[in-house]
Amino acid sequence: MSYFDVASSAPLHPVARQALHASLDEGWADPARLYREGRRARLLLDAAREAAAEAIGCRPDELTFTTSGTRAVHTGIAGALAGRHRVGRHLIVSAVEHSSVLHSAESHRRAGGTVSEVPVLRTGAVSPGAYAETLRPDTALACLQSANHEVGTRQPVAEVAEACRAAGVPLLVDAAQSLAWGPVEGGWSLLTGSAHKWGGPAGVGLLAVRKGVRYAPQGPADERESGRAPGFENIPAVVAAAASLRAVRAEADAESVRLRELTDRIRARVPELVPDVEVVGDPVTRLPHLLTFSCLYVDGETLLHELDREGFSVSSGSSCTSSTLTPSHVLTAMGVLSEGNVRVSLPLGTPAEEVERFLAVLPRAVAAVREKLGAPAGAAATVSPSGAPDALVVDALGKRCPIPVIELAKVITEVPLGGTVRVLSDDEAARLDIPAWCEMRGQEYAGTEPAAQGTAYLIRRVTL
Amino acid sequence: MSYFDVASSAPLHPVARQALHASLDEGWADPARLYREGRRARLLLDAAREAAAEAIGCRPDELTFTTSGTRAVHTGIAGALAGRHRVGRHLIVSAVEHSSVLHSAESHRRAGGTVSEVPVLRTGAVSPGAYAETLRPDTALACLQSANHEVGTRQPVAEVAEACRAAGVPLLVDAAQSLAWGPVEGGWSLLTGSAHKWGGPAGVGLLAVRKGVRYAPQGPADERESGRAPGFENIPAVVAAAASLRAVRAEADAESVRLRELTDRIRARVPELVPDVEVVGDPVTRLPHLLTFSCLYVDGETLLHELDREGFSVSSGSSCTSSTLTPSHVLTAMGVLSEGNVRVSLPLGTPAEEVERFLAVLPRAVAAVREKLGAPAGAAATVSPSGAPDALVVDALGKRCPIPVIELAKVITEVPLGGTVRVLSDDEAARLDIPAWCEMRGQEYAGTEPAAQGTAYLIRRVTL
Repeated sequence: MSYFDVASSAPLHPVARQALHASLDEGWADPARLYREGRRARLLLDAAREAAAEAIGCRPDELTFTTSGTRAVHTGIAGALAGRHRVGRHLIVSAVEHSSVLHSAESHRRAGGTVSEVPVLRTGAVSPGAYAETLRPDTALACLQSANHEVGTRQPVAEVAEACRAAGVPLLVDAAQSLAWGPVEGGWSLLTGSAHKWGGPAGVGLLAVRKGVRYAPQGPADERESGRAPGFENIPAVVAAAASLRAVRAEADAESVRLRELTDRIRARVPELVPDVEVVGDPVTRLPHLLTFSCLYVDGETLLHELDREGFSVSSGSSCTSSTLTPSHVLTAMGVLSEGNVRVSLPLGTPAEEVERFLAVLPRAVAAVREKLGAPAGAAATVSPSGAPDALVVDALGKRCPIPVIELAKVITEVPLGGTVRVLSDDEAARLDIPAWCEMRGQEYAGTEPAAQGTAYLIRRVTL
Repeated sequence: MSYFDVASSAPLHPVARQALHASLDEGWADPARLYREGRRARLLLDAAREAAAEAIGCRPDELTFTTSGTRAVHTGIAGALAGRHRVGRHLIVSAVEHSSVLHSAESHRRAGGTVSEVPVLRTGAVSPGAYAETLRPDTALACLQSANHEVGTRQPVAEVAEACRAAGVPLLVDAAQSLAWGPVEGGWSLLTGSAHKWGGPAGVGLLAVRKGVRYAPQGPADERESGRAPGFENIPAVVAAAASLRAVRAEADAESVRLRELTDRIRARVPELVPDVEVVGDPVTRLPHLLTFSCLYVDGETLLHELDREGFSVSSGSSCTSSTLTPSHVLTAMGVLSEGNVRVSLPLGTPAEEVERFLAVLPRAVAAVREKLGAPAGAAATVSPSGAPDALVVDALGKRCPIPVIELAKVITEVPLGGTVRVLSDDEAARLDIPAWCEMRGQEYAGTEPAAQGTAYLIRRVTL
């Protein structure tokens, strides 16, 4: 069994486990109390803060332990926005931030604030110039992840931080995906992290706020964690988080080289082994352990089940794996194919043989899904060549990803060169996958038209 | 070494430790994922929710796991207030709630809401009648703890819940101190709890919201915990919390009898062994394991240090042990002595011998503190019998608890029967402790007068 989804959550690192066990005996008391059990708990908490601050590259008194990375993001954004409310209520985020950042932005918008979403290139990275142009005199806070959680692309944090510094705007960096590999470079103002992403326990997030950054904690507060994170401190987990961060950092140099070779190999081999695949994300400026690809004519959820049966745990940004039946906002912002999407993120120490086995299994799994989907699609499609070549219509209403694209692919041969086919679809994924299919197949995507039901997608045949 | 402060935080119960260890291997993955590690995590989470819900007396789908008891209170109050904002913005709390409830109330007040604080009797309990009278047509939410965390008094939750039900107002019960001993009786609408109070791990709180209660989650949300508690679930800790709650409940019947005998013995023996002591809180309607007393002429912090040196860890609501130098709001609301305050809360399984040793040590410790304080107080006091007996003034400005009361006690013999002494003090504790001293000594407390500095407390000598 191979767990290849460390970007969702990493198995507990052995050092985290040891530290957790050891500190359960010493770290359960209230660190605010003056008696010996309280003093011992306080010592553990202080030592953990020192260690984590050093790993992040901040002062211990700039670092707050929260109860999750999500909570660190929510807390940090709210506090920074409130600290600068006199400057304005404009918030900047990239279009590919983690949902915790986007949820905070949505909450800010509901409360009357304004939000700008900086678009990304097809690699998933923001352009530092485009980011800088979004800065305004009323910008209270800018947010940028250190690296993307779905495609692994590293963001140009140092350049964006420099632009923010020049504009006098604090930059919050969500470093949840990259902290295992090293501190975040550049002049960030606030930084967030999440322990269970690097092999620490669940229940621990990090929020660093640089001295001098205007910050006003929101909501009810108490005296714990400098008034920035109310509630009893979870000291055993905090100790385990700090210890495991140091431990993974000690392995980071060697493992980043080794895992990068493995992910480079997957990136290179998958398109050779599986037809009609798009590997997405920046091929170079990326996290060493993470890669993502999408497979045409494949249902992501079914593929995940096939791979799970074969002993591989991966995740997907396809619409069929989301509760809202919309494709991942990251893939959408990048404008890449979302159907049959697979994210592979390797844990530290993944043996090369597991990767080879994955490469052996994947083509079979994809072929099996495609075979399953191939038959019903034809029967379900209603092709109506009613006179003029322009009037060819594929009615894919009520069909979910990847069926609309499969039906389009089947009918394209019937379209004369220069002619157009309309695909009627009410599936959100079609909006992303039909243009992506055109790009991959060399056909021309001619936009959408309103339809009585759903949307009509226009495709012009320009390639034989 | 005897840890007698389980009301702050309980040592990890052996069952919690076992469950935590066991579920670290199975519960680290994302329960929202479809692969095997995710499914296993989901099974653990579901089973923990079933178990905890049964122990609380609610349906599993009414129960949300939060990251602390404090977070459960903040979240629950905010959600319930928002859910009924059309009814009004009036919130009711008792004067002796946990700080997390009072901080939420303060936050609500800052946001433009109104708050009524129901006073308590000298026992620490609210009167159900007084509580009912506070209910208004615009009351959105009422809060009442199940039992007080500082003095152990149980609140009349069932009666207050009935009054709330009749008025159509939801009642939130903070059950953090009592959940180990059994479910909360009566028709509560929302309930909160905290695992580390019953021997579960830190990092787990409970928020139950009955079906039919109007509830609107506040702040940024995600899809976890039904949208009520954002952030990655801490499943190993949740499993340990649920397992240990069942385990302590299995011991509750026997231990509540045994610990009640031990605390009854302390309540009876302390006034016999130590002069000038006030045991506070309801002697009968109380938690079995918790009791509180205050010692005249004693500095709480010094007494805690003396007891710590002797191997006893207890806490105190005296002003000298608070960062704000104000006495505990609970003791203040009860109108009882706050100086030399000691709270004893016994863990499950506390041997009777430890209690006997505490009773042997305490008189020495109190006597040592009193002796230390006795000498400097006399030299520092400025007694000015300037003509009329009414003009006797003790200048205790700049002196902290318990010095003002010590100086008052020294000078009272110089006051003729029927005469008055003025104590000038700028110590917040004097406001509570001078009237309490009068009560204990049978003298008449005649109120306060404004003074150039601090406050003048008037005491009339009516007893020889």
